[in-house]
Amino acid sequence: MSGTFKENDLVLLVYDKKRRWIKKITDKAFHTNYGHVNLMELIGLPLGSSLQTNKGKWIKATLPTLLDWFDFFEHKSQIIYAKDAAMISLLLDAKPGDKIYEAGTGSGALTSLLARAVGDSGSIVTHENRDDAQKVAIKNVEKLGLTNIEFISCNVIEDGFAEGEADSIILDMGDPWLAIPRVMDILKIGGRIVLFIPTFQQLEKAHDALEENQFKGIRTIELIEREIQMKKHAYRPSTRMIGHTGYLMSATYHPLVKDKEIVD
Amino acid sequence: MSGTFKENDLVLLVYDKKRRWIKKITDKAFHTNYGHVNLMELIGLPLGSSLQTNKGKWIKATLPTLLDWFDFFEHKSQIIYAKDAAMISLLLDAKPGDKIYEAGTGSGALTSLLARAVGDSGSIVTHENRDDAQKVAIKNVEKLGLTNIEFISCNVIEDGFAEGEADSIILDMGDPWLAIPRVMDILKIGGRIVLFIPTFQQLEKAHDALEENQFKGIRTIELIEREIQMKKHAYRPSTRMIGHTGYLMSATYHPLVKDKEIVD
Amino acid sequence: MSGTFKENDLVLLVYDKKRRWIKKITDKAFHTNYGHVNLMELIGLPLGSSLQTNKGKWIKATLPTLLDWFDFFEHKSQIIYAKDAAMISLLLDAKPGDKIYEAGTGSGALTSLLARAVGDSGSIVTHENRDDAQKVAIKNVEKLGLTNIEFISCNVIEDGFAEGEADSIILDMGDPWLAIPRVMDILKIGGRIVLFIPTFQQLEKAHDALEENQFKGIRTIELIEREIQMKKHAYRPSTRMIGHTGYLMSATYHPLVKDKEIVD
Amino acid sequence: MSGTFKENDLVLLVYDKKRRWIKKITDKAFHTNYGHVNLMELIGLPLGSSLQTNKGKWIKATLPTLLDWFDFFEHKSQIIYAKDAAMISLLLDAKPGDKIYEAGTGSGALTSLLARAVGDSGSIVTHENRDDAQKVAIKNVEKLGLTNIEFISCNVIEDGFAEGEADSIILDMGDPWLAIPRVMDILKIGGRIVLFIPTFQQLEKAHDALEENQFKGIRTIELIEREIQMKKHAYRPSTRMIGHTGYLMSATYHPLVKDKEIVD
Repeated sequence: MSGTFKENDLVLLVYDKKRRWIKKITDKAFHTNYGHVNLMELIGLPLGSSLQTNKGKWIKATLPTLLDWFDFFEHKSQIIYAKDAAMISLLLDAKPGDKIYEAGTGSGALTSLLARAVGDSGSIVTHENRDDAQKVAIKNVEKLGLTNIEFISCNVIEDGFAEGEADSIILDMGDPWLAIPRVMDILKIGGRIVLFIPTFQQLEKAHDALEENQFKGIRTIELIEREIQMKKHAYRPSTRMIGHTGYLMSATYHPLVKDKEIVD
Repeated sequence: MSGTFKENDLVLLVYDKKRRWIKKITDKAFHTNYGHVNLMELIGLPLGSSLQTNKGKWIKATLPTLLDWFDFFEHKSQIIYAKDAAMISLLLDAKPGDKIYEAGTGSGALTSLLARAVGDSGSIVTHENRDDAQKVAIKNVEKLGLTNIEFISCNVIEDGFAEGEADSIILDMGDPWLAIPRVMDILKIGGRIVLFIPTFQQLEKAHDALEENQFKGIRTIELIEREIQMKKHAYRPSTRMIGHTGYLMSATYHPLVKDKEIVD
Repeated sequence: MSGTFKENDLVLLVYDKKRRWIKKITDKAFHTNYGHVNLMELIGLPLGSSLQTNKGKWIKATLPTLLDWFDFFEHKSQIIYAKDAAMISLLLDAKPGDKIYEAGTGSGALTSLLARAVGDSGSIVTHENRDDAQKVAIKNVEKLGLTNIEFISCNVIEDGFAEGEADSIILDMGDPWLAIPRVMDILKIGGRIVLFIPTFQQLEKAHDALEENQFKGIRTIELIEREIQMKKHAYRPSTRMIGHTGYLMSATYHPLVKDKEIVD
Repeated sequence: MSGTFKENDLVLLVYDKKRRWIKKITDKAFHTNYGHVNLMELIGLPLGSSLQTNKGKWIKATLPTLLDWFDFFEHKSQIIYAKDAAMISLLLDAKPGDKIYEAGTGSGALTSLLARAVGDSGSIVTHENRDDAQKVAIKNVEKLGLTNIEFISCNVIEDGFAEGEADSIILDMGDPWLAIPRVMDILKIGGRIVLFIPTFQQLEKAHDALEENQFKGIRTIELIEREIQMKKHAYRPSTRMIGHTGYLMSATYHPLVKDKEIVD
């Protein structure tokens, strides 16, 4: 049922749990250790179809999800974890039509997630001061066909943000508190901000900068993900897990309007 | 900067952290313990403006975020936590244009989040067998102005799902394993499924039902949210926290197509 | 089998999970809402025997464990959690014959646990600067019949520790880093120290004080206890849990001996 | 201050955090990659003294703590974690004079901790059905000089426990529920039991076996240890952590005495 493959589709090819690739459907043969296939044969077949290699092995083809894409993102530093990216999107209240500012771009994973959340009527303006990271992010993101992302090459602490008005803003960068005074140039009143903060020492600096700059409702959470290992009749949390990624500090920009203030 | 209030807007009114209301801008006076205000005065004012009550207190007005809305949702049972709702949306690969099936509706919080994620070009078909819960959910959701949700009153285990084709499906219901054989009637190949599962004993049944029905890549995680209390110079995780909500089991529907199977 | 009750034994009397008391076997009638019993009837009966009240209800009698005692400890501030007390004892390498210094005494719970661990051949020297807390602790501890505890009323930051030599030392007090320079007066070389530290901001101060005072192998852990609720066929972590108690920072006192230092 | 080294002492030799050894003070030269030392030179020197190798490097000597010993224990399977061992000891109410039964012995780490807790007036009777594990445990334990441990080679499910009366009992073995009916032969009334249980599926079987065999106050907890990484001005929980070891289920043996029962 549902769709079929078309030429130039980017497809997730699966041999087994570990052997997975994302490839475009073109007339170039696709070679693996298990033999090669002609991806053009997928055209017109239903999603989820399999192709047989010349060595008699089967390879299944589907469309990649965003999380599949993340597995294939090239990255210079640690890619943001899915649990954090999903929650950041909600804390930013990201929705179709929003214009979201981001500093820094990193591998572009969070950028992609937000770009998809704001849809064609919205856009992401993402700032990065490391050119090599930005290049990688652009390469990662363009594969997804997202066209609503503007990449800015700058240091927001020194240069400020690109001109415009942001519905919300995410700071995933070193010393984010130094960027907060710049945020007021672009964040609309009532707009949401999220800071991704790895260490204890950074929390107080970030909190104080938000408070001094008229943000309200400052709240910090940490999400811990525990995987459940499902070996037959012996389910249990995995023996090894990621112990820490970072804290998510969020707030709303509520500056004085007409000299009337609320208590927080 | 940015927008101003208009008549009939639903606005979040904030006196302090605990005294918050969502009200429509009409010519009815809004009464609080701190005096009353005329919300019509907000019209034309910038978002984030404040009104003074007849008792001289100030009340700030903004547009509510989705998380603000959740705080005001009426609910018959426990509302889904933000951390879980956000991750479920990502695990479902929810995106503009998707058609997502849900069983059951609950308070409508996750329904709303997904409806916003799929946008006007997508839709949510949500099933609930408790009429009182459904009524509450409809009431909750219509305040948000979401028009892309179809409410179905039925027991999916006995009656199956509404006809159609789903890009993905979320089961947040008792005995979800009993609904899995019905899922194949509506879920497209390569579609994602997520099950919200509170107890240990349910995990194995759910896993086995997925495995028997040709789902692949079954994975179960748990998200634990820890709030950081930020008392001046004395930051620490909160003394009390929510210890458990539920497990998120996810998988992809990969049935045999043309008798070729992949190893998982 | 095994022992029988004797006059003046302190016994744990259990009506149900919540109605529990610790009482001494004397000829005074013991009154409850479920009737009264004569505890002298227990004398000579096996541990675990039950007495019938004059209202026909049964009350079971056993000897209390240390954890039972903790439930009945009077306390001015939060009593230390079992998980932390047990680990502190191990981190201190507490064993029969040890002399352990403690600041502050608190409710006396950890003091009791350590006193029992060092046995009759060892001793605990515990310091407390709040007289009301000390009084309560003495009252708590003497019920257990522990005779190897010395209670010192002093502020260790200003007054230093009681004279003597400690095998190990536990600091559970405000600003523990200020007490560390005093520790060297009493802690033997190679002795272990543990600091109980509630907040993020205190960690760095404590760490630096240890490092400056020739402690090695500084390590900080946090123990999180999750209770499993075992409702029939529906086991799951409890919905509510204690989110945070404090960090356990531990180290070994390894000052320069004969001007030769090790790298840590 | 305090003690000095004597011939035949087992000493912890530390070059740096990773290069550590436990050796006996004899006239055999001790060779390392950093040169060799004559341990006899330690005799009469204070604990914490350093020796210089023939290559001019310094090696520090102290007495090992129990946790140091655990690092050097040979083991056939995963050694019990310190957090669990410490809590088990408290849940068992282990104290000087107690006689504790254990099945199985494993590497002997928990056995050692309990042996030290019960002191010379108490004893541990530990059962193991794998001869190779038992041999290793005996070797591990005898280095510590503990003389109050009895090693039994048997399968407690089939053979039952060694004759005698136990103050408490710890089961760290496969299918512990099958051993519970045997526990009543040896556990005194009011005695404590702890079961170490790795998986979800085992919890219900263990709980039901305890309940059917007149144990009361059944409680299950999990301890999660999080290490704090203390890099200068950048403290944070470690990126990687142990995600799961096992659950600790504990209860008290409260059989009917004279046909009178308590409600739990």
